[in-house]
Amino acid sequence: MKFKARTDLALEARELYFESSAIETDVDGVEAEEEETDCGIKISRVRITSKNGEETIGKPVGNYVTLELPQNADFEQRIHTAACKAFADELKRLIGDKNDGTILVLGLGNRNITADALGPKVVDMVLVTRHLIEYMPEEIDQRLKSVCAVSPGVLGITGVETGEIVKGVCDRVKPSLVIAIDALCSRRMERVNNTIQLADTGIVPGAGIGNRRMAINNETLGVPVIAIGVPTVVDAATIAGDTIDRIVGNMKANAKENKALFRMLETIAEDDKYGVIKEVLKPDCDNFIVTPKEVDSAVELVAKIIADGINSAIHQGVDLDEFKGL
Amino acid sequence: MKFKARTDLALEARELYFESSAIETDVDGVEAEEEETDCGIKISRVRITSKNGEETIGKPVGNYVTLELPQNADFEQRIHTAACKAFADELKRLIGDKNDGTILVLGLGNRNITADALGPKVVDMVLVTRHLIEYMPEEIDQRLKSVCAVSPGVLGITGVETGEIVKGVCDRVKPSLVIAIDALCSRRMERVNNTIQLADTGIVPGAGIGNRRMAINNETLGVPVIAIGVPTVVDAATIAGDTIDRIVGNMKANAKENKALFRMLETIAEDDKYGVIKEVLKPDCDNFIVTPKEVDSAVELVAKIIADGINSAIHQGVDLDEFKGL
Amino acid sequence: MKFKARTDLALEARELYFESSAIETDVDGVEAEEEETDCGIKISRVRITSKNGEETIGKPVGNYVTLELPQNADFEQRIHTAACKAFADELKRLIGDKNDGTILVLGLGNRNITADALGPKVVDMVLVTRHLIEYMPEEIDQRLKSVCAVSPGVLGITGVETGEIVKGVCDRVKPSLVIAIDALCSRRMERVNNTIQLADTGIVPGAGIGNRRMAINNETLGVPVIAIGVPTVVDAATIAGDTIDRIVGNMKANAKENKALFRMLETIAEDDKYGVIKEVLKPDCDNFIVTPKEVDSAVELVAKIIADGINSAIHQGVDLDEFKGL
Amino acid sequence: MKFKARTDLALEARELYFESSAIETDVDGVEAEEEETDCGIKISRVRITSKNGEETIGKPVGNYVTLELPQNADFEQRIHTAACKAFADELKRLIGDKNDGTILVLGLGNRNITADALGPKVVDMVLVTRHLIEYMPEEIDQRLKSVCAVSPGVLGITGVETGEIVKGVCDRVKPSLVIAIDALCSRRMERVNNTIQLADTGIVPGAGIGNRRMAINNETLGVPVIAIGVPTVVDAATIAGDTIDRIVGNMKANAKENKALFRMLETIAEDDKYGVIKEVLKPDCDNFIVTPKEVDSAVELVAKIIADGINSAIHQGVDLDEFKGL
Repeated sequence: MKFKARTDLALEARELYFESSAIETDVDGVEAEEEETDCGIKISRVRITSKNGEETIGKPVGNYVTLELPQNADFEQRIHTAACKAFADELKRLIGDKNDGTILVLGLGNRNITADALGPKVVDMVLVTRHLIEYMPEEIDQRLKSVCAVSPGVLGITGVETGEIVKGVCDRVKPSLVIAIDALCSRRMERVNNTIQLADTGIVPGAGIGNRRMAINNETLGVPVIAIGVPTVVDAATIAGDTIDRIVGNMKANAKENKALFRMLETIAEDDKYGVIKEVLKPDCDNFIVTPKEVDSAVELVAKIIADGINSAIHQGVDLDEFKGL
Repeated sequence: MKFKARTDLALEARELYFESSAIETDVDGVEAEEEETDCGIKISRVRITSKNGEETIGKPVGNYVTLELPQNADFEQRIHTAACKAFADELKRLIGDKNDGTILVLGLGNRNITADALGPKVVDMVLVTRHLIEYMPEEIDQRLKSVCAVSPGVLGITGVETGEIVKGVCDRVKPSLVIAIDALCSRRMERVNNTIQLADTGIVPGAGIGNRRMAINNETLGVPVIAIGVPTVVDAATIAGDTIDRIVGNMKANAKENKALFRMLETIAEDDKYGVIKEVLKPDCDNFIVTPKEVDSAVELVAKIIADGINSAIHQGVDLDEFKGL
Repeated sequence: MKFKARTDLALEARELYFESSAIETDVDGVEAEEEETDCGIKISRVRITSKNGEETIGKPVGNYVTLELPQNADFEQRIHTAACKAFADELKRLIGDKNDGTILVLGLGNRNITADALGPKVVDMVLVTRHLIEYMPEEIDQRLKSVCAVSPGVLGITGVETGEIVKGVCDRVKPSLVIAIDALCSRRMERVNNTIQLADTGIVPGAGIGNRRMAINNETLGVPVIAIGVPTVVDAATIAGDTIDRIVGNMKANAKENKALFRMLETIAEDDKYGVIKEVLKPDCDNFIVTPKEVDSAVELVAKIIADGINSAIHQGVDLDEFKGL
Repeated sequence: MKFKARTDLALEARELYFESSAIETDVDGVEAEEEETDCGIKISRVRITSKNGEETIGKPVGNYVTLELPQNADFEQRIHTAACKAFADELKRLIGDKNDGTILVLGLGNRNITADALGPKVVDMVLVTRHLIEYMPEEIDQRLKSVCAVSPGVLGITGVETGEIVKGVCDRVKPSLVIAIDALCSRRMERVNNTIQLADTGIVPGAGIGNRRMAINNETLGVPVIAIGVPTVVDAATIAGDTIDRIVGNMKANAKENKALFRMLETIAEDDKYGVIKEVLKPDCDNFIVTPKEVDSAVELVAKIIADGINSAIHQGVDLDEFKGL
């Protein structure tokens, strides 16, 4: 069995493709652009436009935006403000004119597992207005949009597919747009709690830290779905796999003269990689995750950026300070 | 405006009736029996059988069972075991033969407010099996029933009526029975965190610490609903109201000879009661609750009794120890 | 036994005095001044200057400052900023020149009881620098003062008097100033989570939600102690007592003509008050507290004001944004 | 720089020694014995008796006991009970006759970081009696020993060396024995949350997830210190290092015939190992930890075993059920 690094980021899926292909050419059906703000926030926009792009990168047709915050951004209010603004701007672009009805914000993930609690944490901080607009319409700012927010839990806790619960709620609430927030897996520790991905394709099975089988997208729900994800972990198996690739890569670089050795390195690696990973990560190599020690506070900080960003992207022109519980 | 003590307990509704009626006679359409176990657990069963009973007591036709644990029961494992068993027995009786399909356990209330978090806490501890039975039927004990569990949140957090979310989930899951757990209001501090009420009538609007408008019952969901409630607070206004009743009651007892005084006491109390309560509980007399200091651990303990009791009432004959995360 | 409303606020102790004394004259040894800021924050400064003042008001000689925030202040960033500033200004005045050594911040109270967790929450948010100044002095802003912070727990959890633990820590750390934060009891719901008291007298036995016996003050620790307190609860017994006072007060106002009745009202009230309170608050009238439903978030908000205020009062002239984990 | 796998377990330190030494002979000054209980709990006792043993294994002279629970032990009450008993028996042996005065239980670690919160969690569950014995000696079971318990926090939060705070508390409380609980680092995922180490040597600098500089032992505190540790994480760098060792080991096994290749494998690995690890774990290879996804509940479970075990080891012959808040 061949080991494959696991990632939920389109950015990394594209990287993986280029790593494994000989030459870095453009892929037909994939457009990409990059930008960097004053505060050092890198914005990459990948647009997959055709079946060919979809198959090459392994992500469905749609728009993928990635924001990478500078390292240690968590300690400065200035970066927090800039990150909220950059995120809100990208979200606004993806929302376009889909916010004329109710928006349903979904906090996916398990609130009892720190690294998976991003979605529920965002839901707890999002400004919810649907009930105010319904029950006391004359008392609130007319520019506020109708927003509701649900954390549906995870299969292991509820016994029900997340997608089923979401579908049930959508059938009652009939939103015009769904925004789903979820914790993701990255390939690289340097992206953890530091990178925000937006996509207008919804969330497809197998993504996230937990296992979700039913897609949450336009096809299953009947409304557009914007997915917002932050990698909060790297699979321990991915770290082990990367380690092998690098040590073997280094050996190969040193073994260029010695053809027998070079060939052996290639063969051995292919054969042994998965076995070694399973041995190092006994007893359960699929269940171990790598996080920074301070994962608890890091997830809190990025949840706040996303919640603030969602609030300001949706309720444009409203001074939200007076609604903010700080 | 006349002040009325707020209660969600059928037991107390009946008490209130007898307090305000002159003679303690039987009410037509209301049957009541009491029992006490070895461990000092008092079990009262009130059955409302007719429209007359319904109107007299102010609770819909159905069965209401109340378990009162001995004070300070929280410190003894022995009482915990006895309470689980007594509770499971009463629950089994109410479930009857309605557990041949999937059972949906609902954790009502706001998990971010300690005194309202009972329902979500129970859901976190209930043994959920529906997904196991669906995805790996051959690997699990055939006697396990199918159980799923959802904490739908509260209107102020989600922006959606709890009843709407529950209806949406029911439409997808199609349970044969719903068991809904909620934190209640009592009239008496001595019942707080100490009393468990079961009812096969579902939950009617206005109950609980928060405000729920849409009923969760057979009529709205199309399946039988067993409601389990524990009073975790007394309204501060109820305490104030009770205080007035008692002080005035004492004065009346002392003023029997003096007719003018007696009449004055009756008039003044009626007029002033509500005004005094509002004055004492400025600025928001509907928003203040009375709890024991250690409400956090008390709610945890009673949630554990309910979760253990639900598990053993549903999965009869299965040794649940091997599924228990302690 | 005569019932006495319980309060930890000097402001209320003074009110209680004037309520029980016939005419509102000045008390010798007590100076008081009031101020109101633009944002509607009321600042009262009570200075007790003599033994006579001490005995009259029942609080030791020293400075007591009370900030009262406008109701619902929690929803506006603007008020939060103003409250931080007003609080920091008063704190600076009390600190004076006592911040030339290490400052020890104490988070008193039980972090597992929501209404008592104020102190530990503040400690979690205070900027701690002592170890940085000690281990990497050249890497940090020279204007930062040395701050350390400890949450010593409560007697029921640790088995050790809080004062003993604090004394032990002081003996090792040798601070030049102690700032102790604690949750208090008020007489009035309208002050709960809304009022911040500062005092340069330390904390005296019996204060707070829990029971602390050993004083934490200059006398016991050998360093000046500034106490910061916020009422987070009212004793349920106080609410009941106030209710009786008011209903009886109303009756008296209506009974002025009828001397016999008037006299009876006075007598009955004195006799019965405590008995009624104990009856209403069975089984444990000293253990019940009144809080707003949303006590959890309210305590969080006021803890943030205090932590931000302490940080800016201590580290004057430093831009703390770059240290802030938001 | 040579990379060295990090471990806090004496068991693993001994393994590491045997891995790096050519033949598995006995080490002078190190005695070891193993045992397995009915329930599959493995108990290893390592006794380091001389300077030579100390230097060979890298742990100070003393007794080290390790309990390894069977995998997935967390799901069975039966295993929980057996683990409590086995742990209590070993603890009793180490305590010997040192429990004739007050015992101080220390919960080391940071309660805000899930994987480091083991100590504070245990402290929250330990039965504390010192204050009862002091303030109401006639009301409690005379067989109860005097126990107090403190969670001193960590340097990064308090600004004070943990050892300093502990020393200060000891100077006031004057215990006859200290029991310190801390979260540890292991080399192997299979030991995480599954292994309990007891040692009568105290805790030496550098141990644990955080960094502690001042030792907590007989020398610094003046009383015997029993340390109880559970590995809750593996350093990500250790995982990466182990991966390299294994892949290179596999290659060596296949390259036995080819001496040049074999020699190269040995050289390359030594040179590159640390560089590869730093590259894979950018940007901060010392800050990343590997945990099971469900680390939150796993730490909770093992904390309960330790707390129950401590309680029953200390208060021998007392029925603790009546004190147990379950």
